[in-house]
Amino acid sequence: MLEKVKTPDDVKKLNLNELKILSKDIRERIIDVTSRTGGHLAPSLGIIELTVALLKVFDPLMNRIVWDVGHQSYAYKILTERNDRFETLRQYGGISGFNNIFESKYDAFGVGHSSTSISAALGIYIGKELKKNPEKVVVVIGDGAMTAGEAFEGLNNTGGLNKNLLIILNDNTMSISKNVGGIHHYLANILTGKRYNKIKKEVWDLVQSLPKLVRKKIITGVRRLEDSILSMLVPSSLFEDLGFKYIGPINGHSIPTLVKILSNVKQHVEVPCLVHIITKKGKGYNFAEQDATKFHGVSAFNNETGELNKTKAKKSIPTYSQYFGKILTKLAEEDEKIVAITAAMTDGTGLKEFRDRFPKRCFDVGIAEQHAVTFAAGLSIEGIKPFVAIYSTFLQRAYDQIIHDVALQKLPVKFAIDRGGLVGEDGPTHHGAFDLSYLRCIPNMTIMSPRDGEELKKMLKFMAGYKKGPIAVRYPRGTLHNYPELTNTRIYYGKPEIVLEGGDIAIITIGTVFKIGYEVYKKLQSKRINSYLINARFAKPIDSELLQNLYDNGVKFIVTIEENAIRGGFGSGILEKANELGLKFKKFKMFGIPDKFINHGKISKLHNLIGLEPKNILNIIFNEYAKSN
Amino acid sequence: MLEKVKTPDDVKKLNLNELKILSKDIRERIIDVTSRTGGHLAPSLGIIELTVALLKVFDPLMNRIVWDVGHQSYAYKILTERNDRFETLRQYGGISGFNNIFESKYDAFGVGHSSTSISAALGIYIGKELKKNPEKVVVVIGDGAMTAGEAFEGLNNTGGLNKNLLIILNDNTMSISKNVGGIHHYLANILTGKRYNKIKKEVWDLVQSLPKLVRKKIITGVRRLEDSILSMLVPSSLFEDLGFKYIGPINGHSIPTLVKILSNVKQHVEVPCLVHIITKKGKGYNFAEQDATKFHGVSAFNNETGELNKTKAKKSIPTYSQYFGKILTKLAEEDEKIVAITAAMTDGTGLKEFRDRFPKRCFDVGIAEQHAVTFAAGLSIEGIKPFVAIYSTFLQRAYDQIIHDVALQKLPVKFAIDRGGLVGEDGPTHHGAFDLSYLRCIPNMTIMSPRDGEELKKMLKFMAGYKKGPIAVRYPRGTLHNYPELTNTRIYYGKPEIVLEGGDIAIITIGTVFKIGYEVYKKLQSKRINSYLINARFAKPIDSELLQNLYDNGVKFIVTIEENAIRGGFGSGILEKANELGLKFKKFKMFGIPDKFINHGKISKLHNLIGLEPKNILNIIFNEYAKSN
Repeated sequence: MLEKVKTPDDVKKLNLNELKILSKDIRERIIDVTSRTGGHLAPSLGIIELTVALLKVFDPLMNRIVWDVGHQSYAYKILTERNDRFETLRQYGGISGFNNIFESKYDAFGVGHSSTSISAALGIYIGKELKKNPEKVVVVIGDGAMTAGEAFEGLNNTGGLNKNLLIILNDNTMSISKNVGGIHHYLANILTGKRYNKIKKEVWDLVQSLPKLVRKKIITGVRRLEDSILSMLVPSSLFEDLGFKYIGPINGHSIPTLVKILSNVKQHVEVPCLVHIITKKGKGYNFAEQDATKFHGVSAFNNETGELNKTKAKKSIPTYSQYFGKILTKLAEEDEKIVAITAAMTDGTGLKEFRDRFPKRCFDVGIAEQHAVTFAAGLSIEGIKPFVAIYSTFLQRAYDQIIHDVALQKLPVKFAIDRGGLVGEDGPTHHGAFDLSYLRCIPNMTIMSPRDGEELKKMLKFMAGYKKGPIAVRYPRGTLHNYPELTNTRIYYGKPEIVLEGGDIAIITIGTVFKIGYEVYKKLQSKRINSYLINARFAKPIDSELLQNLYDNGVKFIVTIEENAIRGGFGSGILEKANELGLKFKKFKMFGIPDKFINHGKISKLHNLIGLEPKNILNIIFNEYAKSN
Repeated sequence: MLEKVKTPDDVKKLNLNELKILSKDIRERIIDVTSRTGGHLAPSLGIIELTVALLKVFDPLMNRIVWDVGHQSYAYKILTERNDRFETLRQYGGISGFNNIFESKYDAFGVGHSSTSISAALGIYIGKELKKNPEKVVVVIGDGAMTAGEAFEGLNNTGGLNKNLLIILNDNTMSISKNVGGIHHYLANILTGKRYNKIKKEVWDLVQSLPKLVRKKIITGVRRLEDSILSMLVPSSLFEDLGFKYIGPINGHSIPTLVKILSNVKQHVEVPCLVHIITKKGKGYNFAEQDATKFHGVSAFNNETGELNKTKAKKSIPTYSQYFGKILTKLAEEDEKIVAITAAMTDGTGLKEFRDRFPKRCFDVGIAEQHAVTFAAGLSIEGIKPFVAIYSTFLQRAYDQIIHDVALQKLPVKFAIDRGGLVGEDGPTHHGAFDLSYLRCIPNMTIMSPRDGEELKKMLKFMAGYKKGPIAVRYPRGTLHNYPELTNTRIYYGKPEIVLEGGDIAIITIGTVFKIGYEVYKKLQSKRINSYLINARFAKPIDSELLQNLYDNGVKFIVTIEENAIRGGFGSGILEKANELGLKFKKFKMFGIPDKFINHGKISKLHNLIGLEPKNILNIIFNEYAKSN
């Protein structure tokens, strides 16, 4: 069936039974391709029937369909003229793992981070309205994404303005791992009927408390009415309170039901409407249904056994995230004031062990980074030591809170910034390219980044003991790298590690790109060019003494290496400091992420693309060095 | 009565009648002082009875009271050992206009921006709990602040964790100007009984639709039951859905009611509880009751007539905000694609005229900066030209959205960044110190800042026509300054204005601190030192040609002036660019905001404090100049 379907128009021509077969084909196609490319499998499997039904009922070029997060839109990509390229998923030059307006006219809005869809769709709808061409705009958003403030802001404004948006709440009772918070309880109560039963009980208690005479007279009537009245009154209130018509909950895997309801809404509803569908994450692939968290985002796997291809290799070398979690758990055993906070990323940030060991000291606050940071500020006011583990790009959501709630009050909140630097296949929405720049301008902030796993351990310990203000440690995606040949020295506040000394060139690196600096150093050595190799450790503060000493010792050529935007980044901070000190180095070269967004692809490929690799750095050094001598 | 009350303990000793007299005294005191100092009058007047009742019932050192925004806490300040200093309100060295943990042990959490209180209070509560000493924590939050995503995130997490927080929702049906959005309708419906009546009607419609025989039998029973059942079911649902016990709405100016309910909650409620009180903004001061928006935050005024002291002077010279609004309205008359977006700041950002002229093209989205920016992204996808007017520090709330939703998609959203630079009396939570740094590292972003009102006009026009990506203009608080003796030249993308030429010094300024640069230039002239005076216009991109030309023309000394953090700011960008070009200027001095938070006080005083004034800059130039010659 899938072979016959080239465009969304082809979907429209199919009958309900054919749509069912189509769904089966798409499911097989997604499992087949992601088993080789990796990708967001479980979310995409859960939403195939909805996608098919949406395309049966709506016109995606006219109605625009805004997918929240976008990692569940594989079926949509397949059905909107991208099936032939679907095998290139997440590969360099291939199609993105998210929606991307530059990739297809069918993608209404670029995504990657969650909870932006309602706001974007409202903008698109009003844009059409201003052009006198209003058409219902459709949003598909998960229950997890509903915990984020921006989703609420979008609901609030849409309800207030009474605009013609259809929001499909895809409720699989999980965001990435288990869902949390009051709204989750609310949704769960709708499903289990708890809220319904609670109110029913209250009604009957009230009836019982009436005088006998009255009670008898009305009891029959109430009994007949209660179910119909209550079922009408109860489940929808939260969304109706915000100005939405509520329909649901309905089975999100039944194509006939979905088509019927969506058609009705399309024809008869012109106000904000929320359709609440229930789906199963990983639907139709046994292994993914059983462990949706494991199959949320996977690397390549064995289609038959459900085993991840790289499981063995990965087990032997932990990732920075895992190692962070392990070390923090150890530290927490010795210091009961240490707690951990995550924004719906317990697994991703490596906090699983910590949560299992200290369930009362691990807080998953939902997709709510703003709250996470202010919450941490509150905890630290009471002398608790909160480690807030958030990915670099997601921390952008809490920028004001870092400044206003933490730094301004000099609160010793500890930031564990995961996914600092390029992340590879997830692409530009997830590359942690800006944190050194956006944190460096904040007063009272200390920023560290370790060269390797052992140093991460030391830094975490250092952070636990640091009381003077906020402190951050930034580390990348990927597995640990260690340097058995180098000794790991003690951390002193604000001080770099001078790893190797000599010559008139100084290579200063921050974080795990130390590896690149080290290779450059070694290559220079092999050409009999001596250089300093310096692991800065601190991106803020910058050590004046280091720069003065380098200058006094005759260094003429500074090379900085970082996996962050060059604009306003670490190298820029070194340059600022050298300028403040009046040190005029003859050459000063910064290597890092250039001033553009970097596409998705393997990290090594991306490093090559932006010249953040030993070969390119050496070429430039040789070139400049030759010139200056 | 106020004279007898020195500490919160003294409040506890008073009876209800004495508390009433105390409230009267406080009201007079606040009106008297703010009439001289200026300040947030209307919000503070609305909440005096609540403050008195809170201190009668709770112990602020044990229970901690977290005031959202903090501008309504004047009565609290007066009653917590700060009455003797209250006359120094908002003055340099005096007490802050907001809560500040460095100012008083009674201030539980520093504030200034809205909607952080629930998150902070949850952190404080759990901190106490972890120390085995849990005590109910109290939050006072306005209905306006409830429209912000972070407030929802905090409610969601508090409800989900079922923690012992008391949230007092101070509902005055306005935030700063008129409140908006679905939640506002919801609250209004509680007050007017609309929701109640809607459901009642639905019940009766249902009854009418039943078979006659059944209907007759039950109609009497339902009639008796309906009021009691419905009033129990209806008004509280939104907050109860999120896991809160709901009490209200109650009269927030009745001390006996408040004391009774708060005492009950203190003694009997140990779950998340929301008490919904209704207050009048500006209560007890006629002029403020009648125009609460005018009296939200005022300069000094005449106590008797309610007239602002500076009304006349202010009228003759508009502020940058007012001028922005005026020009945008003009541009919108010629271009129907122009729309304006504000986050609950229609008046503050000068958009009142625009809203009155184009009500359908002006969007007040509530205190919801994240949504505002993504919403604008959605609009611009449809070819609309959204101008998003947000204060510099509030835009920090939407940092991720600027990167992820706007810049990554190269959408031509237009940012009007008001309050860029120091704002004076509102202090460090409101000083726009970081925007040039945090925006400069974002790819595809263009950042402008005008030297004066005329240039702001040109830049707004330029922005309206710019289609290649996001573009921002940044301007300060305060009245316009113009330079009749200087001609205003045309704006070219990325190009600075070379205002005056000559010599081996170049003074490069961005924004209205051009004034400082100009004075420096003139003083240098008077000492027969020639210099270049350059108005950069663009903080991004930086013009390579300019720097190359200056270098080629023999400039040896670069001076940059900006009202932004020096770290990663404009000067830093110039230095980066000069370094990239390999231009080694002999001296390079950056003037701006040093790497610390700047207190509140008059802007001139603050400029003096941080050396951002001609005298200091001249001293340094003379000193360095002498050295280098």
